[in-house]
Amino acid sequence: MLIQRLCIIGVGLIGGSLARALRQAGQCKEIIGCSRNTAHLQQAVELGVIDRFTTQMSEAVIDADMVVVAVPLGTTASVFAAICETLAPNAIITDVGSVKGSVVTTAQQHLGQHLPRFVPAHPIAGTEKSGVAASFASLFERHQVILTPLPETEEQAVEKVTTMWTYTGAQVIKMSVAHHDEILAATSHLPHLLAYSLVDTLATMEDRIEVFRFAASGFRDFTRIASSDPQMWHDICLTNQTAILEALARFSGDLDKLTKAIRQQDGQTIKEIFTRAKVARDRFSQGI
Amino acid sequence: MLIQRLCIIGVGLIGGSLARALRQAGQCKEIIGCSRNTAHLQQAVELGVIDRFTTQMSEAVIDADMVVVAVPLGTTASVFAAICETLAPNAIITDVGSVKGSVVTTAQQHLGQHLPRFVPAHPIAGTEKSGVAASFASLFERHQVILTPLPETEEQAVEKVTTMWTYTGAQVIKMSVAHHDEILAATSHLPHLLAYSLVDTLATMEDRIEVFRFAASGFRDFTRIASSDPQMWHDICLTNQTAILEALARFSGDLDKLTKAIRQQDGQTIKEIFTRAKVARDRFSQGI
Repeated sequence: MLIQRLCIIGVGLIGGSLARALRQAGQCKEIIGCSRNTAHLQQAVELGVIDRFTTQMSEAVIDADMVVVAVPLGTTASVFAAICETLAPNAIITDVGSVKGSVVTTAQQHLGQHLPRFVPAHPIAGTEKSGVAASFASLFERHQVILTPLPETEEQAVEKVTTMWTYTGAQVIKMSVAHHDEILAATSHLPHLLAYSLVDTLATMEDRIEVFRFAASGFRDFTRIASSDPQMWHDICLTNQTAILEALARFSGDLDKLTKAIRQQDGQTIKEIFTRAKVARDRFSQGI
Repeated sequence: MLIQRLCIIGVGLIGGSLARALRQAGQCKEIIGCSRNTAHLQQAVELGVIDRFTTQMSEAVIDADMVVVAVPLGTTASVFAAICETLAPNAIITDVGSVKGSVVTTAQQHLGQHLPRFVPAHPIAGTEKSGVAASFASLFERHQVILTPLPETEEQAVEKVTTMWTYTGAQVIKMSVAHHDEILAATSHLPHLLAYSLVDTLATMEDRIEVFRFAASGFRDFTRIASSDPQMWHDICLTNQTAILEALARFSGDLDKLTKAIRQQDGQTIKEIFTRAKVARDRFSQGI
C-alpha cells in the first residue's frame, strides 16, 4: 500500500476526488480530512470520501506520511504555517494549486526543513462545480498532472507523488515553475477571464434586451467555465499576475486587429484569422 | 400537407436538417435541392434529404410553394436576383441567415413583387460542423426560430413559415430586425469572435511553448465554436458590422476594467466581476 495515512487539507472537488481515487485503488490505509467547515467534513465522511476529520490543521497532519494541500491559493500560506511544526519528519507534502510560482514562494517561506519533501503539483482537471459533493473517483483519468519540483526537492518524494497520481489514472509530467505558469495563463486562466468578462458584459445588457433568452448551445459551452468558483479564480488572478497580464495583452492585441479588420470591412484579414483558428482548433480536437 | 414542393437553396447543415425534419413530419410532398456543387447535391439525394436537384437556381424554384434560402449571407443577394423571375406568384420565400438587416436590404433590392411573401427568419441552432452529412432531423427541436417580418410582409406568409418551423419542434418568436441583430451580436457573434481570436492567439504561441497539449476540458468547451465555418463567420462580420462593433467595444471596455483590476491587485473588483458573472451564468443554466 502506497500511503499509510493520507491527510487531505481542503476536501473539495479536487481533494475529495483524489481521496476517492486512491481509496478505490486501495492505496490508502486511512484518510484524514481537514478544513474549517465541520458540516462539509461531516458530509465527506458520510460520502465515504474520508475516514475521519479535524478542523485543526496542526493535529490533522500528525503521523501522516502524505499530506495533500487542496485549498484555494490564497489560503496556502496559512496552511503551510499551521502544519509545519507537527509534520512528521519524513512526511511528503504536495499541493494541487493552479499557479505554481506563488505556492513555491510560500513553501520556501514556511516549510523550513520540510521543503525538500514538498512536491509542487497541479492536476489539470476539474469541472465548473465545487465542493466534496461534486467529487468523483475518475476525475483525473487520462488527465495530466504537472509536477514542478525544485532543485532541492528529494527524488524519492517526486517519485512517491508521481506514483500516487498514476494510481488515479493520470499522466504525470515534469516542467519548470515558470513554464507551467505561462502555459496555464494561456490555456486556462485567460479563457476563464474571457468567459467571466463576457457573461458580465451580457448581464449588464440583460436589463435592456433579453440576451440570455436567445443564447444557443455554442454560448452555453463557451460560458460554462464562468460558473467556476469566484474565490478560486480571484486567487489565481492575484498569484499568477505577471503571466496572466502578458496573456491578456497578447489576446487584446489580437482582438484589436480583428476589430480593426471588421471596422475596415477587411474580409481577407477576417477570413485569415478564422481559418488559422479553425485549423488549430481542429488539430487540437484530433489530438495532433 | 403543408408544402407541395419545397425548394431548398443551399443544402448544408441547416437546409439539410430542415428538409429532414419536414420530411419526417410528413409535411412535404417533394423536396428540390439546389446549390453550386453537384457532388454535395448527389450526396443529399443519397442521404434521402432531397428528392432531386438542379444547380440552376432559376429552374429550382419553378412551381415551388415554399423556397428556403439557406446559403452563407454573402451569397444571399445573388440567390434573390437569380430566383426572382421564375418564382411562382404565390411562392413563400424565407431564409435562415444569422443576420437579418443585410438580408432584408437585399430582399428589398432584389425580390420586387415577391417581397410581401418573403419572411426573414433565423433558426438559433447549429453545431460547429458544416455540410449535409452533418444534418439531422432533430436539430431544431426545442430551439428558437426568430422571424423578423417587415410592415409589408403578408400575414399568411408569416403564418405558413411559423407552421413550417413548428413542425421541426422549434419555438417561433417574432421581433424587429434591429433587435434581432443586436441580440445575436451579443450572444452569438461576439462569443464566436472571442473563441476564434483566442485560438489564434494561442496558435501563435504554440511554436514556442506547447500550449494545446496541456489544455483541459474547459478549454475544449470554450473553443469548440472556433471550429465553425470561416466563410460563414466572415459573412456575418461583414453584414452585422455595426452591432458587432458595438458588442466588441462593450466587451473590450469590460475586459480592460478586469485587466486593470488584476494589474492593481484589486481583489475586491476581481471578485465582484466573477461573482456577478457566476450568478448570471448559473441563472442561465437553470433557465430562470
